[in-house]
Amino acid sequence: MNKEALCHIPKSNYAYAYKLDELHIRLRTAKDDLEEVTLFYGNKFNWQNKKSGQMQKVYQDKYYDYYEYRLQLEDTRLGYYFGLKKGEEYLFLTEVGLEKSFNDDMAYCYYFQYPFINAEDVHKQPSWLQHAIFYEIFVERFFNGDVANSPIPLTPWEDNPTPKSFLGGDLKGIIKKLDYLENLGINAIYLTPIFEAPSNHKYDTVDYMRIDTYFGDEKIFEELVLKAHQKGMKIILDAVFNHCGMAFAPFQDVVQKGRASKYYDWFFIEGEKVILEPPNYLTFSQVPYMPKLNTAHPEVREYLFSVVRYWTKTYGIDGWRLDVSDEIEHGFWRAFRELVKGINQEVVIIGENWHNAYPWLMGDQFDSVMNYPLTKLMGDYFARKAIDAKAFKEQLTSLYMRYPKQVNEGMLNLLDSHDTERFLTLCQEDKASLKNAVAFLFGYIGIPCTYYGTEIGMIGEYDPGCRKGFDWCEAHWDQDVYHYYKRLIAIRKQEKVLQTGEMSLFYQGKLFVMRRYDQEAMIDIVINQTQGPLTYEIAYRGKKEGGRCEEVLYN
Amino acid sequence: MNKEALCHIPKSNYAYAYKLDELHIRLRTAKDDLEEVTLFYGNKFNWQNKKSGQMQKVYQDKYYDYYEYRLQLEDTRLGYYFGLKKGEEYLFLTEVGLEKSFNDDMAYCYYFQYPFINAEDVHKQPSWLQHAIFYEIFVERFFNGDVANSPIPLTPWEDNPTPKSFLGGDLKGIIKKLDYLENLGINAIYLTPIFEAPSNHKYDTVDYMRIDTYFGDEKIFEELVLKAHQKGMKIILDAVFNHCGMAFAPFQDVVQKGRASKYYDWFFIEGEKVILEPPNYLTFSQVPYMPKLNTAHPEVREYLFSVVRYWTKTYGIDGWRLDVSDEIEHGFWRAFRELVKGINQEVVIIGENWHNAYPWLMGDQFDSVMNYPLTKLMGDYFARKAIDAKAFKEQLTSLYMRYPKQVNEGMLNLLDSHDTERFLTLCQEDKASLKNAVAFLFGYIGIPCTYYGTEIGMIGEYDPGCRKGFDWCEAHWDQDVYHYYKRLIAIRKQEKVLQTGEMSLFYQGKLFVMRRYDQEAMIDIVINQTQGPLTYEIAYRGKKEGGRCEEVLYN
Ligand SMILES: [Ca+2]
Ligand SMILES: [Ca+2]
Repeated sequence: MNKEALCHIPKSNYAYAYKLDELHIRLRTAKDDLEEVTLFYGNKFNWQNKKSGQMQKVYQDKYYDYYEYRLQLEDTRLGYYFGLKKGEEYLFLTEVGLEKSFNDDMAYCYYFQYPFINAEDVHKQPSWLQHAIFYEIFVERFFNGDVANSPIPLTPWEDNPTPKSFLGGDLKGIIKKLDYLENLGINAIYLTPIFEAPSNHKYDTVDYMRIDTYFGDEKIFEELVLKAHQKGMKIILDAVFNHCGMAFAPFQDVVQKGRASKYYDWFFIEGEKVILEPPNYLTFSQVPYMPKLNTAHPEVREYLFSVVRYWTKTYGIDGWRLDVSDEIEHGFWRAFRELVKGINQEVVIIGENWHNAYPWLMGDQFDSVMNYPLTKLMGDYFARKAIDAKAFKEQLTSLYMRYPKQVNEGMLNLLDSHDTERFLTLCQEDKASLKNAVAFLFGYIGIPCTYYGTEIGMIGEYDPGCRKGFDWCEAHWDQDVYHYYKRLIAIRKQEKVLQTGEMSLFYQGKLFVMRRYDQEAMIDIVINQTQGPLTYEIAYRGKKEGGRCEEVLYN
Repeated sequence: MNKEALCHIPKSNYAYAYKLDELHIRLRTAKDDLEEVTLFYGNKFNWQNKKSGQMQKVYQDKYYDYYEYRLQLEDTRLGYYFGLKKGEEYLFLTEVGLEKSFNDDMAYCYYFQYPFINAEDVHKQPSWLQHAIFYEIFVERFFNGDVANSPIPLTPWEDNPTPKSFLGGDLKGIIKKLDYLENLGINAIYLTPIFEAPSNHKYDTVDYMRIDTYFGDEKIFEELVLKAHQKGMKIILDAVFNHCGMAFAPFQDVVQKGRASKYYDWFFIEGEKVILEPPNYLTFSQVPYMPKLNTAHPEVREYLFSVVRYWTKTYGIDGWRLDVSDEIEHGFWRAFRELVKGINQEVVIIGENWHNAYPWLMGDQFDSVMNYPLTKLMGDYFARKAIDAKAFKEQLTSLYMRYPKQVNEGMLNLLDSHDTERFLTLCQEDKASLKNAVAFLFGYIGIPCTYYGTEIGMIGEYDPGCRKGFDWCEAHWDQDVYHYYKRLIAIRKQEKVLQTGEMSLFYQGKLFVMRRYDQEAMIDIVINQTQGPLTYEIAYRGKKEGGRCEEVLYN
């Protein structure tokens, strides 16, 4: 037995409340190491009636097997430990360590515990989230719906943008294209920032209480939310709270008055006066025009929360995407969640965390994060072709096991965004690979999010390449890609099993296979990333009586 | 290389901010497996200037080596990964997994990160905590300082108590014995509950706003706090918020009015009316007379917080010990911390968690918990003699590695309490073993807490045996134990290195050795748990010039 490989962490992604009366217990062991894993469990205060059950080996990655057991509980004050069998060897894994026998007389000292499931502690997401089809719009580049409000000078829409050029896209443009989005099947739109800011991306906010004049005004935004809601679409805004723009009035006040400014402590300034080059204040990245906000300062917090309150309440928006969310203190996000969910439980909170985000996803902060580690992994398999089906399956499993089930179900999965190259470009414009990736994306657990234009075959390198104007001339579209996208979205929405079903991952020769299943249906997503044709042998245990086995889609 | 044994979890006990500019990084490997572990690290936004350093193998338990690196940082936006060397094999451990080379072009996707150290996120404890010598008083059994207020009928002080007997101990008794405690060296007193409650232990609160009449009144409590403070002693109260007593007015209102009561939702009741036998409401453990409080209910929360506010503000108490803290939702404790620390940063918050308590010790909830896993382990080694020096050292290491350094530094370490047997009884009255345990307790990292009377050699089984009246007849005391305790406390207070020094653990033959050291001093605590004498060979690298090497204490 590889004892060193064993891992169980109480009250973590290895032991979490999925619902108020349902606990999931996971155990990690070395790959193909154990023959049998038994979960012993009981009510801490009624231990003599403890029970046991065989744990299921549900996932496997490069080095580990993952066993799982789902407990439906009446009394959630649980003690538990594991029985591990390999050949003649039988050991118990307890909180104290590995034991040859379990000391029932001192059970309280030995078992792991889940002390109680409190309703408030159960990580819950908005009820609509699992059924969402997201679409990210970089507002300045989607559609110029109002030529009158466009910046001057204006770069022609079809030109390649530079980091600083303006093409004129706006909120009116989105309103005008809602039919397009509806037709595509989108039901949730995430907008990059729309508040007053000098740049085209508007991550350098100047006034959090106003819509940028190049994008429209409050009336137009109201119309957008209303019309989107009429179509059953959600509107998610970008919350840029880690930093502001240089021209943000409080920062300008400090620039003028130095330490005498009442806003001095809103920022992190070293010295009496603001020095711009090199900056003597904290910034986002190394960008002097984006001063970091002191989000722990009560006034800053109250200011930003008034912003959140205003847009959430007055306009009835459906969610916030949180820019640079991992650099802001956790307490800010906890208070943010309380505020937002207090207004409306159904507002979604999506962090921008590029790394393992579990510390933000325990139920007290975010509902979800942009799943960039998955983006990278999809890039490796579908685009860079750096790994084969087996490695993809293994690495996907490692990522999947990072989080509790409900977190995985709410992750925002994306092939590309305004912060990456276009996925088709990453695929070296190999459409078949993009289409494979799309099939995977819409089959995988979590929320698929499409970056505007990827569905019509847009290409482009990292910023500014990935921020071109959406080409509304349909003749220019890659109709094959577009119709494939549309069909995949339709299937995702039609097949409940893709939204809420269980999942297993495997590979068959060079084929990667993802199976989604529930009591009613089963769908295999089979990916061939090789050049030639391969045969897939459908292997599953039995067929539901009266069930149909149909071919769904070939790429 | 045992690849399966490798463990690093970002933003956890494996990577935590010790201070605003100091980050500790830990890596776990299989025992005696690797030859060299290198930490590669750099500013995420200045990655080209990354650095590296050798990690130190600081601890070892039965299966693992633990490497550590302490980073002093100017810019805390850190990316990092590990280089692992074993013979010809060299691998990099990244967030993606093990890699043969580190892909610097995509560094952002591969490194682990600590995105930013926000001051608010750094786990901080009261500044006095590391210097504290705690003493737990079970109030009803310490000293009857006011015979006039004692319950009738009263069991004679020297009789063995039953679960329901009253001996008459009170707050006045504590005041009268403050000199005793001062003389012993105590500087922090934790009192079991003192609010109005029918039982002798008072964990069944009836009125959270009143001192129990058998214990005294608000004036006497005020005097106790004042006099303790005059002697430089802290007063910590017991917060029983998971449940109340049956006679708590809101519960009685529900007993009378059923669902019509405005307090119905303060509890978890199934049905229209309260049924007592068997209870149709949630309780602590299986105890019908302790109904569980719905601490997530805003009114309950506000009520309990008004209690906290009253005692913390009005009487200037120094801390709260939280009864059954692991069964209350985390959000309650976060709000509790905000409230308490808002009144006074120096108020300590100590949970009663008997198991791995990391989810409560991340800086947003508790400062500390009662370290019962250590109590169990000390019992195994010193009392039950179930394990040898090697196993003790290994299991101690496993416990130690559960938490960040500052959490270990603030843990409340105890040999016994009102919820265990007396340690001397567990030792089968073998004084030498108790004294060994005491030497360990006062040498170990964390806050030593003595349960009233253990220092004079009191014995007793689990409740009611461990709750006897303190025998104030000095002739009855075990003077040897008492003076040993006193001396150990004096040494702990005198030697800064025992309060704030670093620690290493090892064993030499059958001897267990704990070394505490800093720039100024080094103390070895050497434990011989065998029957015969053993020789200890002092082995350390060099002696500070002009330093003294002195014998401190033999047991
Ligand atoms: Ca326009
Ligand atoms: Ca009395």
